[in-house]
Formats: sequence, C-alpha cells, structure tokens
Amino acid sequence: MSRTVEIDLGDRRYPIHVGAGIIGERSLFAPHVSDRHAFVVTNETVAPLYLDRLRPALADASGVHIHVIADGERHKTLDTFAVLQNALVTQRIARDGVVIALGGGVVGDIAGFAAACYQRGVDFVQVPTTLLAQVDSSVGGKTGVNLPGGKNLVGAFHQPRCVVSDTATLATLDPREVRAGFAEVVKYGLIDDPDFFDWLEANAAALLDLDDDALTTAVVRACERKAALVVADEREAGVRALLNLGHTFAHAIETGTGYGEWLHGEAVAAGIVLAARMSHRMEWLAGQDCERIERLFVRASLPVRAPADLSPERMLELMSVDKKVRRGRLRLILLRGIGEAVLTSEFDPNALQATLEAGREAA
Amino acid sequence: MSRTVEIDLGDRRYPIHVGAGIIGERSLFAPHVSDRHAFVVTNETVAPLYLDRLRPALADASGVHIHVIADGERHKTLDTFAVLQNALVTQRIARDGVVIALGGGVVGDIAGFAAACYQRGVDFVQVPTTLLAQVDSSVGGKTGVNLPGGKNLVGAFHQPRCVVSDTATLATLDPREVRAGFAEVVKYGLIDDPDFFDWLEANAAALLDLDDDALTTAVVRACERKAALVVADEREAGVRALLNLGHTFAHAIETGTGYGEWLHGEAVAAGIVLAARMSHRMEWLAGQDCERIERLFVRASLPVRAPADLSPERMLELMSVDKKVRRGRLRLILLRGIGEAVLTSEFDPNALQATLEAGREAA
Repeated sequence: MSRTVEIDLGDRRYPIHVGAGIIGERSLFAPHVSDRHAFVVTNETVAPLYLDRLRPALADASGVHIHVIADGERHKTLDTFAVLQNALVTQRIARDGVVIALGGGVVGDIAGFAAACYQRGVDFVQVPTTLLAQVDSSVGGKTGVNLPGGKNLVGAFHQPRCVVSDTATLATLDPREVRAGFAEVVKYGLIDDPDFFDWLEANAAALLDLDDDALTTAVVRACERKAALVVADEREAGVRALLNLGHTFAHAIETGTGYGEWLHGEAVAAGIVLAARMSHRMEWLAGQDCERIERLFVRASLPVRAPADLSPERMLELMSVDKKVRRGRLRLILLRGIGEAVLTSEFDPNALQATLEAGREAA
Repeated sequence: MSRTVEIDLGDRRYPIHVGAGIIGERSLFAPHVSDRHAFVVTNETVAPLYLDRLRPALADASGVHIHVIADGERHKTLDTFAVLQNALVTQRIARDGVVIALGGGVVGDIAGFAAACYQRGVDFVQVPTTLLAQVDSSVGGKTGVNLPGGKNLVGAFHQPRCVVSDTATLATLDPREVRAGFAEVVKYGLIDDPDFFDWLEANAAALLDLDDDALTTAVVRACERKAALVVADEREAGVRALLNLGHTFAHAIETGTGYGEWLHGEAVAAGIVLAARMSHRMEWLAGQDCERIERLFVRASLPVRAPADLSPERMLELMSVDKKVRRGRLRLILLRGIGEAVLTSEFDPNALQATLEAGREAA
C-alpha cells in the first residue's frame, strides 16, 4: 500500500509519498535529481541502515555526495549548519543542486535550513526515517537549528520538492523513538480531528507495533491534517500556530534539560498533558477528556509531567522566549475539547503557575 | 530635496526614502518601530558618527538595543551571524521585533540575513550610510554572508520594510568608498539605461564631490532601475541576473585577495571593464564604447584590471563557484552595447582566457 498526499502551496506544491519499502523507488526521485548533483545529509545511525537502499534510487543524479553528521538534537546547531555550508561549496554544489535529507527531524531541520540558505536557496527532498519526522517535520517547510537560549530560534521557511516516507524504515527505530512520534500523531487528533483521536485510542497498540497498514493510515492522516493548517497559513500568522499544541511547554523542557535528555516527542507528550491540565483548571476542558488524553500517553509509556529539577519559575522563564510571544505577552495553545485547540493570550496566569507546580515529576 | 521610490513587490512592498538629513526623521521610522523592540546593528566606524542622529528617530520604539560589529567585509561571516542570533535571543527580541541596519553593505547584508532567519523572519529596516549600499544593497532583499570558499554563498531573500537613505551621511565617507559606490551606479547605465550613462559622464565630478542634488538624482535613478529588474524577477530566475554585470569577475577578485584588500565596488569596476573587454573581443561591443566605459572608471580613480598576483587559472577556478553556474556551465553578463547587458553561457572560452591574461595589473 503506497499513498500520496499533495501539499497544495501553489508554486511550492509538493507530494508526500507514504508506503512500506518505497525508499528505493527511483521513479519517485528522478524528477528532482535527474542530471543534477545530489548532496545527501544523513547521520551516523541512519547511514549504515538506509544509505545502500537509497543510493540506487538516486541513479539519475549526475553526482551524489554523502555528508554524515553526528546523531542527536545537540548537534542541531549553527556550528553544524556552518559545516554543511562549507561542505556544499567544497563539493561545488551549484544553485541547481539538490539537498536530500535522510534521517529524522534533526537531519531534516538542519539539512532543510542548509538548503534554504545555500546560494539563497536550493532544492530539498526529504526522506524521513522516524515516525516523528514522517508525521511532523516533513510537512510545512519549517527548517532551523537551536540556539543555547532556545529551540528552533534560527531558521527559514523552505518547502521540500518532495517527501518520501518509507514506513518500513521505522522497523529499525528505537521503540522509544516510535513512542515519541506517537505523541505528535495524537496532537493532530487533539487540534481539530476528534475522529482521529478515537481511531488512535482504538489502534494505538497496532501503531506502536509498527503494523504497516496502521502506520500508513496514521502518517497519511497526520500529513493531511497538518497540510490543511499549513495551506491555510503558510507563514504562521494564524491557525498554523495550533500545530504548536504542547510545544511551548515542550521547548522549555528541552531547553531546560540541555537538549538530548528528552526526545522532542516525549517533551511534546508532557507539554500536551500540561496544556490539557491547564485547560481543565480553567474549566475549558472536561475532566474526563483530560484523563483520556493523559491515559493515551501513559499507555504509550510517554512522560506526562515536567522533570523534577525544572522549577515552575525556570519553566516560565524558558517559555518567555517562545516564538509566539507578541508585545511581551505569552500566547498558549489550550484545549476547549478533544479536537478543539485554540491559540490565546487570554489565560489565567495563576492557572499556568498552578499547573506547572502540580505538573512536575516527584523529585 | 527628499524623494521616495516605491518598490512594488505586492505584500512585500516597501518605500526607499532618499534625501539629505533624513536619518533623524521620526515619522519615517514610526510605522515600523512603534511599540516594538528595535535591535540596531551597526559597526564601530558608523556608530560614533550616526547613532546619536538615528536614536531620536526611534523614540516610538518600546525598547532600543544597539549591537556594534567590527568594520569590514572580513567580518561578514557565519561567526558574526551566530553572534547576532545569540544577541537577539539574549535581548529577548520577539517575532514582532525589528532589526535596523545602520551602515554600509556589510552591515545591511548580515543584519538582513540575521533578521531573515531569527525566529524564521522578523522585520528589517535599512539605513544605508555608503553610496554603494544606497544604490545597491538596499534594493532587492538579498542578504547573506561570505564563506571562505566564496562571496555571498549563504543567505536569504528578505525584503526590508523600509529604507532610509540619507545622502548627507556620505559626507563622512572615505573618498575611496564614494568611488567604489560610483562603480555600482555606472553599472545601471550599462545594463539598460544609456541615457543615465550619458548623465553620469556629464555629472561624474559633481557626484564624486558629493553634490546633494547630483547624489539624490543618482541614488533615486539607480534604485528605480534596480527596482524594475527586481520587481520583474524577485528570485533571480531571469533578468535580475543582469544586476551581476561585472560581479562574477569581481567576486573572484575579492575571494582571491581574501576579502578586504579590495573594496567590493573597486572589484566591480575592474569586473565590468573585464566584461566589456571580453564583449569587445567577441565583437559584441564597439571599441569606442569599451573605451568610454574604461575612461569613466579611470576618471573616478577606480581599478580597471585584476590584481597581478591572481593568475587567469586562479580567476577561472574562483569564477566556477559563481551562483549563476547551471549544469556545470559558467554564465556571464556581457555587453552588446552601452545599456544592453545580456546573460549568456554562449561565450567563447578563449575570449575569456585571453581577456583574463591581458586584463591583469603589471606585476
């Protein structure tokens, strides 16, 4: 089973192909690499697993250069970005070259940002090999790196020309990474798709067991939901911000723990539960819905609290550099129901404080 | 006399205000800084000269932070870019903040690139204080930094919200910088405006003497010419490339001499003359027109040859990383007449070789 989601962004329109075993399909890559130089960015974990499967699919390129970066969020830095830029010029990649990201969200974000800026923009193709990257990073064109002071604070909007999501590559994924990706999948149900949330409650086990059909269904549905929001608001002036459900809390956790201790999806799970609890505290979200959300994450062995060593004060400080801050005011995505997320600066600061105090792991 | 050129790029439309003494006009800045944080990037040379004049014009901002960088092309690097990104987050500039570039082309390029990428894009206002920046860098949205392997190889298209070009700031400019800017002014006459070239031949002395009316006329005309090409082709898929007349040679000279020895405009003067001579060698450009061009640059004491220590082989190697290279082929801007520039890959490589051999300074 292979399916295609079209992301309809006018002259930046692109297809996302989803299916088991499609990483080696030459016909999917040919339109983007024929007679051009391909610069593949991957990491030390993914390279030995999938480079040999991808390589024949790039047979139409006039040249292929492989650049391997270290694995992990802590390498998503301006330093790695600079290394990539210098490698692109050393390999004499011209403006008609194409950057291919083979790996998870970190590889996609940094390779995409490199492609966005090299010669002020070259083409970019994504081959995401984690569930999180397949359902999230591959849609919407957000690229970037972290600063010591905050996550994803430097970057660009740069849409890929094509995404090839091979669900079979998830078989080698650390189960912890699968669960982390699951958190981002659940997010789409919570934002505006309550039927999908129901489906996820029913199919969580199949999904976490990497059942091919369940995976393809979930990846396609998540991409469609995200695409709808991105197409409505490419530069995030409005509804697109809803995709950040749980992320203001999550970024604070990731920055506060120094990047790498928590997986992004794990922080998102805890962040979503904190947003849900705060929504419940403000009497926006029913207690039983709050519990359904928490229960689904607990079933997937995902964290539902902030780490014990991050005080509420430190969390608030870290949240204040969020990209959604306007005129000094923090804005949060909260829930009025399952499938009904809202962006608001009209929240009760005491509810936030109380949620952070109650929402830490036991020390 | 103050005039305004509107750059009509749809929702990225912006005005360029040109006139003597306008740097302190609060009304020009208010629409872009009111109730927002302004992050001013300037350099150690410009700061003591113009910061005190600019500051009152920013009175409507809710906060002003000044960031001073070192002066010179050699600091237009990814390292300085990283310093700016970290300073933006340290100063807690939010996505509704505004970056203001006060200085020449280097300050504008790097501050613009920082604004393009910080939080994936914040607003940007330019206050160019060199002739080169007023006639060239402030129009078109090109931002970026150099790599050791080539000039402007990393960057973004990011249009300013407004440009304030105070011709009175040129009074403190090193005459060598004025002459360098003059080279870029002449370029516009050569591309597609033969009447302007005639005007420049007649008014070169007044312009180089910084006559206010001559300056305003030249800056406005240059901005109008550049705007016409940029509006027709914002992302440089076609005619906009003509603005690179002389620049493939010039970038090779700048990279080959390590950035900083030659001013950009000086390299452009030599590059334009090399392009003219090559065009003449190919019998595209009449000998007398080639001489008129060279004579105008000589009158402005600008270089008209490549440096003695850059061999033709080294020049060719450096030219091969040019951003206009497509499918391995170098493309050059050549002249079919004064006011008739063309982008072509159909040139005689022997003519290029011979031009480079004949076009070096005596050792």
